[in-house]
Amino acid sequence: MILSIIDLVGTFFFAISGVLVALNKRLDPFGILIIAFVTAIGGGTLRDVIIGRTPVGWMYDLKYIYVIFLAVLIGVIFRKKLDTLRTSFLLFDTMGLSVFTMTGVGIGIHTGLHPMICIALGTMSACFGGVIRDILCNEIPVIFRKEIYATACILGGCIYFASMQVFTDEVSYIISIGVIVTVRLLAVRYKLKLPTFS
Amino acid sequence: MILSIIDLVGTFFFAISGVLVALNKRLDPFGILIIAFVTAIGGGTLRDVIIGRTPVGWMYDLKYIYVIFLAVLIGVIFRKKLDTLRTSFLLFDTMGLSVFTMTGVGIGIHTGLHPMICIALGTMSACFGGVIRDILCNEIPVIFRKEIYATACILGGCIYFASMQVFTDEVSYIISIGVIVTVRLLAVRYKLKLPTFS
Amino acid sequence: MILSIIDLVGTFFFAISGVLVALNKRLDPFGILIIAFVTAIGGGTLRDVIIGRTPVGWMYDLKYIYVIFLAVLIGVIFRKKLDTLRTSFLLFDTMGLSVFTMTGVGIGIHTGLHPMICIALGTMSACFGGVIRDILCNEIPVIFRKEIYATACILGGCIYFASMQVFTDEVSYIISIGVIVTVRLLAVRYKLKLPTFS
Repeated sequence: MILSIIDLVGTFFFAISGVLVALNKRLDPFGILIIAFVTAIGGGTLRDVIIGRTPVGWMYDLKYIYVIFLAVLIGVIFRKKLDTLRTSFLLFDTMGLSVFTMTGVGIGIHTGLHPMICIALGTMSACFGGVIRDILCNEIPVIFRKEIYATACILGGCIYFASMQVFTDEVSYIISIGVIVTVRLLAVRYKLKLPTFS
Repeated sequence: MILSIIDLVGTFFFAISGVLVALNKRLDPFGILIIAFVTAIGGGTLRDVIIGRTPVGWMYDLKYIYVIFLAVLIGVIFRKKLDTLRTSFLLFDTMGLSVFTMTGVGIGIHTGLHPMICIALGTMSACFGGVIRDILCNEIPVIFRKEIYATACILGGCIYFASMQVFTDEVSYIISIGVIVTVRLLAVRYKLKLPTFS
Repeated sequence: MILSIIDLVGTFFFAISGVLVALNKRLDPFGILIIAFVTAIGGGTLRDVIIGRTPVGWMYDLKYIYVIFLAVLIGVIFRKKLDTLRTSFLLFDTMGLSVFTMTGVGIGIHTGLHPMICIALGTMSACFGGVIRDILCNEIPVIFRKEIYATACILGGCIYFASMQVFTDEVSYIISIGVIVTVRLLAVRYKLKLPTFS
Protein backbone atom coordinates (compact mmCIF):
# COMPACT_ATOMS: atom_id res chain seq x y z
CA MET A 1 0.00 0.00 0.00
CA ILE A 2 1.47 3.28 -1.14
CA LEU A 3 0.00 5.28 1.76
CA SER A 4 1.67 3.14 4.34
CA ILE A 5 5.00 3.64 2.57
CA ILE A 6 4.54 7.40 2.51
CA ASP A 7 3.59 7.21 6.18
CA LEU A 8 6.90 5.46 6.94
CA VAL A 9 8.79 7.95 4.77
CA GLY A 10 7.12 10.76 6.73
CA THR A 11 8.11 9.08 9.99
CA PHE A 12 11.68 8.84 8.74
CA PHE A 13 11.91 12.51 7.87
CA PHE A 14 10.20 13.64 11.04
CA ALA A 15 12.75 11.58 12.97
CA ILE A 16 15.58 13.17 10.98
CA SER A 17 14.28 16.63 11.86
CA GLY A 18 14.39 15.53 15.51
CA VAL A 19 17.99 14.36 15.12
CA LEU A 20 18.98 17.72 13.65
CA VAL A 21 17.48 19.71 16.51
CA ALA A 22 18.97 17.33 19.10
CA LEU A 23 22.44 17.53 17.54
CA ASN A 24 22.14 21.28 17.60
CA LYS A 25 21.48 21.17 21.33
CA ARG A 26 24.49 18.83 21.73
CA LEU A 27 22.42 16.06 23.30
CA ASP A 28 23.98 12.64 23.87
CA PRO A 29 23.02 9.64 21.68
CA PHE A 30 20.07 8.58 23.80
CA GLY A 31 18.86 12.13 23.99
CA ILE A 32 19.00 12.17 20.20
CA LEU A 33 17.15 8.87 19.98
CA ILE A 34 14.39 10.03 22.30
CA ILE A 35 13.95 13.37 20.52
CA ALA A 36 13.83 11.59 17.15
CA PHE A 37 11.28 9.20 18.58
CA VAL A 38 8.93 11.83 20.01
CA THR A 39 9.17 14.00 16.91
CA ALA A 40 8.15 11.07 14.72
CA ILE A 41 5.45 9.48 16.87
CA GLY A 42 4.47 12.25 19.33
CA GLY A 43 1.67 13.72 17.23
CA GLY A 44 0.07 10.36 16.50
CA THR A 45 0.43 9.29 20.13
CA LEU A 46 -1.34 12.40 21.38
CA ARG A 47 -4.08 11.85 18.77
CA ASP A 48 -4.57 8.23 19.80
CA VAL A 49 -4.55 9.02 23.51
CA ILE A 50 -7.22 11.72 23.37
CA ILE A 51 -9.58 9.59 21.31
CA GLY A 52 -8.84 6.48 23.38
CA ARG A 53 -7.13 4.30 20.72
CA THR A 54 -4.80 2.60 23.19
CA PRO A 55 -2.32 0.97 23.30
CA VAL A 56 -1.24 3.56 20.75
CA GLY A 57 -0.39 2.46 17.22
CA TRP A 58 3.41 2.23 17.21
CA MET A 59 3.29 -0.23 20.12
CA TYR A 60 2.02 -2.92 17.79
CA ASP A 61 3.89 -1.96 14.64
CA LEU A 62 7.66 -2.27 14.97
CA LYS A 63 8.23 -0.92 11.45
CA TYR A 64 7.99 2.58 12.89
CA ILE A 65 10.61 1.82 15.53
CA TYR A 66 13.01 0.42 12.95
CA VAL A 67 12.54 3.40 10.68
CA ILE A 68 13.30 5.75 13.57
CA PHE A 69 16.45 3.83 14.50
CA LEU A 70 17.52 4.02 10.88
CA ALA A 71 16.85 7.75 10.78
CA VAL A 72 18.94 8.32 13.90
CA LEU A 73 21.81 6.27 12.47
CA ILE A 74 21.74 8.07 9.13
CA GLY A 75 21.19 11.44 10.74
CA VAL A 76 24.16 11.06 13.06
CA ILE A 77 26.51 9.59 10.44
CA PHE A 78 25.70 12.10 7.73
CA ARG A 79 25.17 15.04 10.05
CA LYS A 80 27.67 17.19 8.19
CA LYS A 81 26.08 16.55 4.82
CA LEU A 82 22.47 17.04 5.84
CA ASP A 83 22.64 20.76 5.22
CA THR A 84 23.40 20.31 1.55
CA LEU A 85 20.36 18.05 1.20
CA ARG A 86 18.01 20.57 2.72
CA THR A 87 15.78 20.81 -0.37
CA SER A 88 15.16 17.09 -0.72
CA PHE A 89 14.45 16.89 3.00
CA LEU A 90 11.92 19.66 2.78
CA LEU A 91 10.10 17.77 0.07
CA PHE A 92 9.90 14.51 2.02
CA ASP A 93 9.12 16.22 5.30
CA THR A 94 6.28 18.03 3.58
CA MET A 95 4.96 14.79 2.15
CA GLY A 96 5.09 13.29 5.64
CA LEU A 97 3.24 16.33 6.95
CA SER A 98 0.47 15.96 4.40
CA VAL A 99 0.08 12.22 4.90
CA PHE A 100 0.08 12.51 8.69
CA THR A 101 -2.61 15.20 8.46
CA MET A 102 -4.85 13.09 6.27
CA THR A 103 -4.32 9.96 8.40
CA GLY A 104 -5.47 11.96 11.42
CA VAL A 105 -8.48 13.30 9.53
CA GLY A 106 -9.34 9.76 8.43
CA ILE A 107 -9.14 8.39 11.97
CA GLY A 108 -11.35 11.24 13.15
CA ILE A 109 -13.99 10.43 10.52
CA HIS A 110 -13.80 6.76 11.44
CA THR A 111 -14.33 7.67 15.13
CA GLY A 112 -17.48 9.55 14.09
CA LEU A 113 -16.25 13.04 14.93
CA HIS A 114 -17.43 16.34 13.45
CA PRO A 115 -15.41 17.57 10.42
CA MET A 116 -14.01 20.47 12.41
CA ILE A 117 -12.71 18.12 15.09
CA CYS A 118 -11.33 15.79 12.41
CA ILE A 119 -9.34 18.68 10.96
CA ALA A 120 -8.05 19.60 14.43
CA LEU A 121 -7.10 15.96 14.96
CA GLY A 122 -5.27 15.78 11.63
CA THR A 123 -3.39 19.00 12.30
CA MET A 124 -2.46 17.74 15.76
CA SER A 125 -1.19 14.42 14.36
CA ALA A 126 1.00 16.23 11.87
CA CYS A 127 2.26 19.11 13.98
CA PHE A 128 2.51 18.07 17.62
CA GLY A 129 5.50 15.78 17.22
CA GLY A 130 7.45 18.88 16.31
CA VAL A 131 5.84 20.82 19.15
CA ILE A 132 6.91 18.19 21.71
CA ARG A 133 10.40 18.13 20.16
CA ASP A 134 10.73 21.87 20.62
CA ILE A 135 9.37 21.79 24.18
CA LEU A 136 11.83 19.05 25.17
CA CYS A 137 14.62 21.16 23.68
CA ASN A 138 13.36 24.20 25.57
CA GLU A 139 12.31 26.30 22.58
CA ILE A 140 9.04 28.03 21.77
CA PRO A 141 7.60 25.59 19.21
CA VAL A 142 8.70 26.70 15.77
CA ILE A 143 5.28 26.14 14.23
CA PHE A 144 3.87 28.93 16.37
CA ARG A 145 6.39 31.38 15.08
CA LYS A 146 7.55 30.66 11.57
CA GLU A 147 6.23 29.88 8.16
CA ILE A 148 2.94 28.43 7.05
CA TYR A 149 2.85 25.00 8.64
CA ALA A 150 -0.23 24.19 10.71
CA THR A 151 -2.07 26.50 8.33
CA ALA A 152 -1.33 24.21 5.40
CA CYS A 153 -2.69 21.22 7.36
CA ILE A 154 -5.88 23.02 8.34
CA LEU A 155 -6.39 24.18 4.77
CA GLY A 156 -5.84 20.67 3.43
CA GLY A 157 -8.35 19.28 5.91
CA CYS A 158 -10.99 21.84 4.92
CA ILE A 159 -10.46 21.15 1.23
CA TYR A 160 -10.88 17.43 1.87
CA PHE A 161 -14.35 17.85 3.32
CA ALA A 162 -15.34 20.35 0.61
CA SER A 163 -14.02 18.09 -2.11
CA MET A 164 -15.89 15.05 -0.75
CA GLN A 165 -19.13 16.81 -1.67
CA VAL A 166 -18.13 16.48 -5.31
CA PHE A 167 -15.51 13.78 -5.74
CA THR A 168 -14.80 10.33 -4.37
CA ASP A 169 -12.80 9.70 -1.22
CA GLU A 170 -9.65 8.81 -3.14
CA VAL A 171 -9.73 11.86 -5.37
CA SER A 172 -10.43 14.15 -2.40
CA TYR A 173 -7.57 12.56 -0.54
CA ILE A 174 -5.14 13.22 -3.38
CA ILE A 175 -6.38 16.78 -3.86
CA SER A 176 -5.89 17.52 -0.15
CA ILE A 177 -2.41 16.03 -0.10
CA GLY A 178 -1.60 18.18 -3.12
CA VAL A 179 -2.93 21.32 -1.47
CA ILE A 180 -0.93 20.78 1.73
CA VAL A 181 2.29 20.07 -0.16
CA THR A 182 1.81 23.01 -2.53
CA VAL A 183 0.92 25.53 0.16
CA ARG A 184 3.82 24.46 2.34
CA LEU A 185 6.38 24.49 -0.49
CA LEU A 186 5.22 27.85 -1.81
CA ALA A 187 5.37 29.25 1.73
CA VAL A 188 8.96 28.10 2.17
CA ARG A 189 10.00 29.15 -1.35
CA TYR A 190 8.60 32.67 -1.00
CA LYS A 191 9.17 32.91 2.75
CA LEU A 192 5.46 33.47 3.33
CA LYS A 193 4.46 33.96 6.93
CA LEU A 194 1.22 34.79 8.60
CA PRO A 195 1.25 38.35 9.90
CA THR A 196 1.69 38.89 13.63
CA PHE A 197 -0.07 41.56 15.66
CA SER A 198 1.68 44.44 17.33
CA MET B 1 -28.49 24.94 32.87
CA ILE B 2 -26.59 27.72 34.59
CA LEU B 3 -23.51 25.57 35.28
CA SER B 4 -23.00 24.81 31.65
CA ILE B 5 -23.19 28.51 30.84
CA ILE B 6 -20.60 29.34 33.52
CA ASP B 7 -18.47 26.52 32.12
CA LEU B 8 -18.59 28.13 28.68
CA VAL B 9 -17.89 31.55 30.19
CA GLY B 10 -14.88 30.05 31.97
CA THR B 11 -13.73 28.51 28.69
CA PHE B 12 -14.05 31.89 27.02
CA PHE B 13 -11.94 33.68 29.61
CA PHE B 14 -9.35 30.95 29.76
CA ALA B 15 -9.05 31.22 25.98
CA ILE B 16 -8.69 35.01 26.27
CA SER B 17 -5.85 34.56 28.76
CA GLY B 18 -4.20 32.30 26.21
CA VAL B 19 -4.60 34.93 23.51
CA LEU B 20 -2.98 37.56 25.73
CA VAL B 21 0.09 35.41 26.45
CA ALA B 22 0.38 34.41 22.79
CA LEU B 23 0.14 38.04 21.60
CA ASN B 24 2.83 38.91 24.10
CA LYS B 25 5.10 36.30 22.56
CA ARG B 26 4.27 37.68 19.09
CA LEU B 27 2.94 34.38 17.81
CA ASP B 28 1.16 34.24 14.48
CA PRO B 29 -2.64 33.79 14.25
CA PHE B 30 -2.53 30.00 14.32
CA GLY B 31 -0.09 30.05 17.19
CA ILE B 32 -2.59 32.27 19.00
CA LEU B 33 -5.48 29.95 18.15
CA ILE B 34 -3.62 26.87 19.38
CA ILE B 35 -2.49 28.54 22.62
CA ALA B 36 -6.05 29.76 23.26
CA PHE B 37 -7.30 26.27 22.58
CA VAL B 38 -4.91 24.44 24.93
CA THR B 39 -5.37 27.01 27.68
CA ALA B 40 -9.11 26.53 27.55
CA ILE B 41 -9.35 22.77 27.11
CA GLY B 42 -5.91 21.49 28.22
CA GLY B 43 -6.79 20.92 31.86
CA GLY B 44 -10.02 19.07 31.09
CA THR B 45 -8.29 17.02 28.39
CA LEU B 46 -5.55 15.89 30.77
CA ARG B 47 -8.20 15.04 33.37
CA ASP B 48 -10.25 13.00 30.89
CA VAL B 49 -7.19 11.21 29.52
CA ILE B 50 -5.85 10.03 32.88
CA ILE B 51 -9.21 8.68 33.98
CA GLY B 52 -9.95 7.18 30.58
CA ARG B 53 -12.94 9.30 29.51
CA THR B 54 -12.06 9.21 25.83
CA PRO B 55 -12.68 10.58 23.26
CA VAL B 56 -12.31 13.62 25.50
CA GLY B 57 -15.30 15.89 26.06
CA TRP B 58 -14.74 18.77 23.63
CA MET B 59 -14.59 16.33 20.71
CA TYR B 60 -18.32 15.81 20.95
CA ASP B 61 -19.36 19.29 22.00
CA LEU B 62 -18.65 21.94 19.41
CA LYS B 63 -19.92 24.74 21.64
CA TYR B 64 -16.48 24.83 23.25
CA ILE B 65 -14.77 25.17 19.91
CA TYR B 66 -17.04 28.03 18.85
CA VAL B 67 -16.50 29.83 22.14
CA ILE B 68 -12.73 29.53 21.72
CA PHE B 69 -12.89 30.89 18.16
CA LEU B 70 -14.97 33.77 19.44
CA ALA B 71 -12.47 34.44 22.23
CA VAL B 72 -9.58 34.52 19.75
CA LEU B 73 -11.45 36.89 17.48
CA ILE B 74 -12.41 39.25 20.29
CA GLY B 75 -9.00 38.95 21.93
CA VAL B 76 -7.16 39.87 18.75
CA ILE B 77 -9.51 42.69 17.74
CA PHE B 78 -9.65 44.33 21.15
CA ARG B 79 -6.08 43.52 22.13
CA LYS B 80 -5.28 47.15 22.91
CA LYS B 81 -8.28 47.58 25.15
CA LEU B 82 -7.95 44.38 27.12
CA ASP B 83 -5.62 45.97 29.64
CA THR B 84 -8.25 48.44 30.74
CA LEU B 85 -10.70 45.62 31.34
CA ARG B 86 -8.31 43.72 33.57
CA THR B 87 -10.63 43.78 36.59
CA SER B 88 -13.68 42.37 34.84
CA PHE B 89 -11.49 39.69 33.27
CA LEU B 90 -10.14 38.66 36.61
CA LEU B 91 -13.66 38.17 37.88
CA PHE B 92 -14.76 35.97 35.00
CA ASP B 93 -11.49 34.06 34.89
CA THR B 94 -11.88 33.35 38.59
CA MET B 95 -15.43 32.15 38.07
CA GLY B 96 -14.14 29.86 35.32
CA LEU B 97 -11.45 28.62 37.67
CA SER B 98 -13.95 27.77 40.38
CA VAL B 99 -16.40 26.06 38.03
CA PHE B 100 -13.65 24.04 36.32
CA THR B 101 -12.39 22.90 39.71
CA MET B 102 -15.80 21.73 40.85
CA THR B 103 -16.53 20.03 37.50
CA GLY B 104 -13.30 18.06 37.94
CA VAL B 105 -14.18 17.17 41.52
CA GLY B 106 -17.63 16.04 40.38
CA ILE B 107 -16.22 13.83 37.63
CA GLY B 108 -13.80 12.33 40.16
CA ILE B 109 -16.65 11.49 42.53
CA HIS B 110 -18.63 10.01 39.66
CA THR B 111 -15.62 7.84 38.72
CA GLY B 112 -15.58 6.54 42.30
CA LEU B 113 -12.27 8.09 43.33
CA HIS B 114 -11.11 9.01 46.84
CA PRO B 115 -11.88 12.62 47.91
CA MET B 116 -8.16 13.48 47.90
CA ILE B 117 -7.84 12.29 44.31
CA CYS B 118 -11.03 14.14 43.35
CA ILE B 119 -9.53 17.36 44.68
CA ALA B 120 -6.31 16.72 42.76
CA LEU B 121 -8.39 16.07 39.64
CA GLY B 122 -10.39 19.27 40.10
CA THR B 123 -7.25 21.34 40.64
CA MET B 124 -5.68 19.77 37.58
CA SER B 125 -8.77 20.51 35.45
CA ALA B 126 -8.69 24.13 36.50
CA CYS B 127 -4.96 24.82 36.48
CA PHE B 128 -3.25 22.68 33.86
CA GLY B 129 -4.58 24.52 30.83
CA GLY B 130 -2.57 27.48 32.06
CA VAL B 131 0.40 25.26 32.81
CA ILE B 132 0.43 23.89 29.25
CA ARG B 133 0.02 27.42 27.89
CA ASP B 134 3.08 28.58 29.79
CA ILE B 135 5.13 25.53 28.79
CA LEU B 136 4.29 26.07 25.11
CA CYS B 137 5.35 29.68 25.49
CA ASN B 138 8.58 28.60 27.21
CA GLU B 139 7.88 30.07 30.64
CA ILE B 140 7.96 28.53 34.08
CA PRO B 141 4.22 28.08 34.71
CA VAL B 142 2.93 31.17 36.44
CA ILE B 143 0.84 29.20 38.94
CA PHE B 144 4.02 27.75 40.45
CA ARG B 145 5.43 31.17 41.11
CA LYS B 146 2.78 33.77 41.72
CA GLU B 147 -0.32 34.40 43.72
CA ILE B 148 -2.73 32.04 45.34
CA TYR B 149 -4.16 30.03 42.48
CA ALA B 150 -3.96 26.26 42.80
CA THR B 151 -4.23 26.85 46.52
CA ALA B 152 -7.70 28.33 46.10
CA CYS B 153 -8.81 25.30 44.08
CA ILE B 154 -7.47 22.82 46.62
CA LEU B 155 -9.12 24.75 49.43
CA GLY B 156 -12.45 24.85 47.57
CA GLY B 157 -12.27 21.11 46.98
CA CYS B 158 -11.58 20.39 50.66
CA ILE B 159 -14.44 22.62 51.74
CA TYR B 160 -16.77 20.83 49.35
CA PHE B 161 -16.17 17.45 50.99
CA ALA B 162 -16.37 18.93 54.49
CA SER B 163 -19.56 20.77 53.64
CA MET B 164 -21.19 17.66 52.18
CA GLN B 165 -21.19 16.16 55.68
CA VAL B 166 -23.65 18.86 56.70
CA PHE B 167 -25.36 20.32 53.65
CA THR B 168 -26.80 19.06 50.38
CA ASP B 169 -24.77 18.69 47.22
CA GLU B 170 -26.08 21.92 45.72
CA VAL B 171 -25.39 24.03 48.79
CA SER B 172 -21.91 22.52 49.17
CA TYR B 173 -21.24 23.26 45.53
CA ILE B 174 -22.21 26.89 45.89
CA ILE B 175 -20.20 27.28 49.10
CA SER B 176 -17.10 25.84 47.42
CA ILE B 177 -17.46 28.06 44.37
CA GLY B 178 -17.79 31.01 46.74
CA VAL B 179 -14.66 30.01 48.67
CA ILE B 180 -12.54 29.64 45.55
CA VAL B 181 -13.69 32.96 44.10
CA THR B 182 -13.25 34.80 47.40
CA VAL B 183 -9.81 33.39 48.18
CA ARG B 184 -8.56 34.12 44.70
CA LEU B 185 -9.94 37.66 44.56
CA LEU B 186 -8.62 38.51 48.02
CA ALA B 187 -5.22 37.11 47.06
CA VAL B 188 -5.07 39.28 43.97
CA ARG B 189 -6.44 42.36 45.75
CA TYR B 190 -3.96 42.15 48.61
CA LYS B 191 -1.17 40.61 46.55
CA LEU B 192 -1.10 37.58 48.83
CA LYS B 193 1.46 34.95 47.95
CA LEU B 194 2.52 31.78 49.58
CA PRO B 195 5.96 32.17 51.14
CA THR B 196 8.93 30.61 49.36
CA PHE B 197 11.87 28.94 51.07
CA SER B 198 15.38 30.25 51.01
CA MET C 1 5.90 -7.66 49.25
CA ILE C 2 9.43 -6.32 48.99
CA LEU C 3 8.94 -4.96 45.43
CA SER C 4 6.04 -2.81 46.44
CA ILE C 5 8.14 -1.37 49.27
CA ILE C 6 11.02 -0.57 46.91
CA ASP C 7 8.46 0.99 44.56
CA LEU C 8 7.30 3.30 47.35
CA VAL C 9 10.90 4.04 48.32
CA GLY C 10 11.58 4.93 44.67
CA THR C 11 8.51 7.17 44.65
CA PHE C 12 9.77 8.87 47.78
CA PHE C 13 13.18 9.62 46.35
CA PHE C 14 11.83 10.73 43.00
CA ALA C 15 9.55 13.13 44.89
CA ILE C 16 12.54 14.39 46.89
CA SER C 17 14.42 15.07 43.66
CA GLY C 18 11.41 17.09 42.51
CA VAL C 19 11.43 19.08 45.75
CA LEU C 20 15.12 19.90 45.31
CA VAL C 21 14.65 21.21 41.77
CA ALA C 22 11.55 23.17 42.79
CA LEU C 23 13.31 24.76 45.78
CA ASN C 24 16.13 25.71 43.47
CA LYS C 25 13.65 27.53 41.23
CA ARG C 26 12.20 29.23 44.34
CA LEU C 27 8.70 27.91 43.72
CA ASP C 28 6.03 28.33 46.37
CA PRO C 29 4.81 25.36 48.48
CA PHE C 30 2.16 24.25 46.01
CA GLY C 31 4.58 24.58 43.15
CA ILE C 32 6.89 22.31 45.12
CA LEU C 33 4.09 19.84 45.83
CA ILE C 34 3.07 19.67 42.17
CA ILE C 35 6.65 19.25 40.94
CA ALA C 36 7.26 16.51 43.53
CA PHE C 37 4.05 14.85 42.42
CA VAL C 38 4.77 14.87 38.68
CA THR C 39 8.36 13.77 39.19
CA ALA C 40 7.22 10.78 41.22
CA ILE C 41 4.18 9.69 39.21
CA GLY C 42 4.66 11.35 35.81
CA GLY C 43 6.50 8.47 34.16
CA GLY C 44 4.04 5.84 35.32
CA THR C 45 1.10 8.03 34.35
CA LEU C 46 2.41 8.48 30.80
CA ARG C 47 3.03 4.73 30.58
CA ASP C 48 -0.50 3.91 31.76
CA VAL C 49 -2.11 6.48 29.47
CA ILE C 50 -0.45 5.30 26.26
CA ILE C 51 -1.33 1.66 26.91
CA GLY C 52 -4.83 2.53 28.07
CA ARG C 53 -4.60 1.45 31.74
CA THR C 54 -6.94 4.13 33.00
CA PRO C 55 -7.80 5.49 35.51
CA VAL C 56 -4.03 5.47 36.07
CA GLY C 57 -2.61 3.53 39.02
CA TRP C 58 -2.05 6.19 41.68
CA MET C 59 -5.71 7.17 41.51
CA TYR C 60 -6.65 3.99 43.31
CA ASP C 61 -3.65 3.66 45.61
CA LEU C 62 -3.36 6.46 48.11
CA LYS C 63 -0.10 5.11 49.53
CA TYR C 64 1.69 6.91 46.71
CA ILE C 65 0.04 10.20 47.56
CA TYR C 66 0.96 9.89 51.23
CA VAL C 67 4.55 9.04 50.40
CA ILE C 68 4.77 12.12 48.16
CA PHE C 69 3.33 14.38 50.87
CA LEU C 70 5.88 12.93 53.28
CA ALA C 71 8.71 13.54 50.83
CA VAL C 72 7.66 17.17 50.35
CA LEU C 73 7.49 17.70 54.10
CA ILE C 74 10.89 16.12 54.74
CA GLY C 75 12.43 17.76 51.69
CA VAL C 76 11.32 21.23 52.73
CA ILE C 77 12.21 20.83 56.41
CA PHE C 78 15.65 19.33 55.84
CA ARG C 79 16.44 21.30 52.70
CA LYS C 80 19.70 22.59 54.11
CA LYS C 81 20.94 19.15 55.10
CA LEU C 82 19.99 17.35 51.90
CA ASP C 83 23.27 18.24 50.26
CA THR C 84 25.28 16.33 52.85
CA LEU C 85 23.15 13.25 52.26
CA ARG C 86 23.74 13.27 48.53
CA THR C 87 25.35 9.82 48.43
CA SER C 88 22.56 8.03 50.26
CA PHE C 89 20.02 9.75 48.06
CA LEU C 90 21.78 8.66 44.94
CA LEU C 91 21.61 5.08 46.10
CA PHE C 92 17.87 5.15 46.82
CA ASP C 93 17.05 7.16 43.73
CA THR C 94 18.94 4.60 41.67
CA MET C 95 17.04 1.77 43.29
CA GLY C 96 13.81 3.58 42.47
CA LEU C 97 15.00 4.00 38.90
CA SER C 98 15.73 0.30 38.52
CA VAL C 99 12.45 -0.83 40.09
CA PHE C 100 10.39 1.64 38.03
CA THR C 101 12.09 0.38 34.87
CA MET C 102 11.34 -3.25 35.62
CA THR C 103 7.74 -2.48 36.65
CA GLY C 104 7.24 -0.82 33.27
CA VAL C 105 8.83 -3.75 31.45
CA GLY C 106 6.60 -6.14 33.39
CA ILE C 107 3.45 -4.20 32.52
CA GLY C 108 4.53 -4.18 28.87
CA ILE C 109 4.96 -7.96 28.87
CA HIS C 110 1.60 -8.37 30.56
CA THR C 111 -0.01 -6.18 27.87
CA GLY C 112 1.47 -8.49 25.25
CA LEU C 113 3.90 -6.04 23.71
CA HIS C 114 7.13 -6.81 21.86
CA PRO C 115 10.30 -6.87 24.03
CA MET C 116 11.63 -3.73 22.36
CA ILE C 117 8.43 -1.85 23.20
CA CYS C 118 8.50 -3.25 26.74
CA ILE C 119 11.99 -1.83 27.20
CA ALA C 120 10.88 1.53 25.82
CA LEU C 121 7.91 1.44 28.20
CA GLY C 122 10.14 0.63 31.19
CA THR C 123 12.59 3.38 30.34
CA MET C 124 9.72 5.81 29.93
CA SER C 125 8.22 4.83 33.32
CA ALA C 126 11.54 5.42 35.00
CA CYS C 127 12.75 8.53 33.21
CA PHE C 128 9.79 10.65 32.14
CA GLY C 129 8.83 11.85 35.61
CA GLY C 130 12.18 13.63 35.63
CA VAL C 131 11.65 14.84 32.08
CA ILE C 132 8.29 16.41 32.96
CA ARG C 133 9.84 17.92 36.12
CA ASP C 134 12.53 19.60 34.03
CA ILE C 135 10.07 20.82 31.39
CA LEU C 136 7.83 22.37 34.06
CA CYS C 137 10.89 24.09 35.49
CA ASN C 138 11.89 25.30 32.04
CA GLU C 139 15.11 23.31 31.67
CA ILE C 140 16.30 20.98 28.93
CA PRO C 141 15.67 17.61 30.60
CA VAL C 142 18.81 16.59 32.44
CA ILE C 143 18.65 12.99 31.22
CA PHE C 144 19.25 14.18 27.66
CA ARG C 145 22.44 15.93 28.64
CA LYS C 146 24.20 14.35 31.55
CA GLU C 147 25.40 11.03 32.82
CA ILE C 148 24.28 7.55 31.96
CA TYR C 149 20.65 7.43 33.00
CA ALA C 150 18.18 6.25 30.37
CA THR C 151 21.04 4.15 29.05
CA ALA C 152 21.16 2.15 32.28
CA CYS C 153 17.41 1.48 32.04
CA ILE C 154 17.59 0.36 28.42
CA LEU C 155 20.55 -1.89 29.22
CA GLY C 156 18.74 -3.40 32.20
CA GLY C 157 15.69 -4.08 30.04
CA CYS C 158 17.76 -5.81 27.36
CA ILE C 159 19.55 -7.93 29.95
CA TYR C 160 16.20 -8.99 31.39
CA PHE C 161 14.99 -10.44 28.10
CA ALA C 162 18.36 -12.07 27.43
CA SER C 163 18.49 -13.53 30.90
CA MET C 164 14.96 -14.94 30.65
CA GLN C 165 16.26 -17.33 27.97
CA VAL C 166 18.40 -18.97 30.64
CA PHE C 167 17.06 -18.19 34.10
CA THR C 168 13.68 -17.88 35.80
CA ASP C 169 11.69 -14.67 35.93
CA GLU C 170 12.75 -13.86 39.48
CA VAL C 171 16.46 -14.38 38.85
CA SER C 172 16.30 -12.34 35.64
CA TYR C 173 14.52 -9.58 37.51
CA ILE C 174 17.20 -9.43 40.18
CA ILE C 175 20.01 -9.52 37.62
CA SER C 176 18.44 -6.63 35.70
CA ILE C 177 17.92 -4.55 38.82
CA GLY C 178 21.57 -5.21 39.68
CA VAL C 179 22.75 -4.16 36.23
CA ILE C 180 20.80 -0.90 36.27
CA VAL C 181 22.00 0.03 39.76
CA THR C 182 25.62 -0.91 38.99
CA VAL C 183 25.79 0.91 35.66
CA ARG C 184 24.22 4.03 37.09
CA LEU C 185 26.41 4.12 40.20
CA LEU C 186 29.61 3.48 38.22
CA ALA C 187 28.59 6.22 35.78
CA VAL C 188 28.13 8.73 38.58
CA ARG C 189 31.27 7.59 40.44
CA TYR C 190 33.52 7.87 37.39
CA LYS C 191 31.56 10.70 35.77
CA LEU C 192 30.91 8.58 32.71
CA LYS C 193 28.92 10.25 29.95
CA LEU C 194 27.93 9.19 26.53
CA PRO C 195 29.93 11.11 23.94
CA THR C 196 28.19 13.91 22.05
CA PHE C 197 28.70 14.74 18.41
CA SER C 198 30.29 17.90 17.14
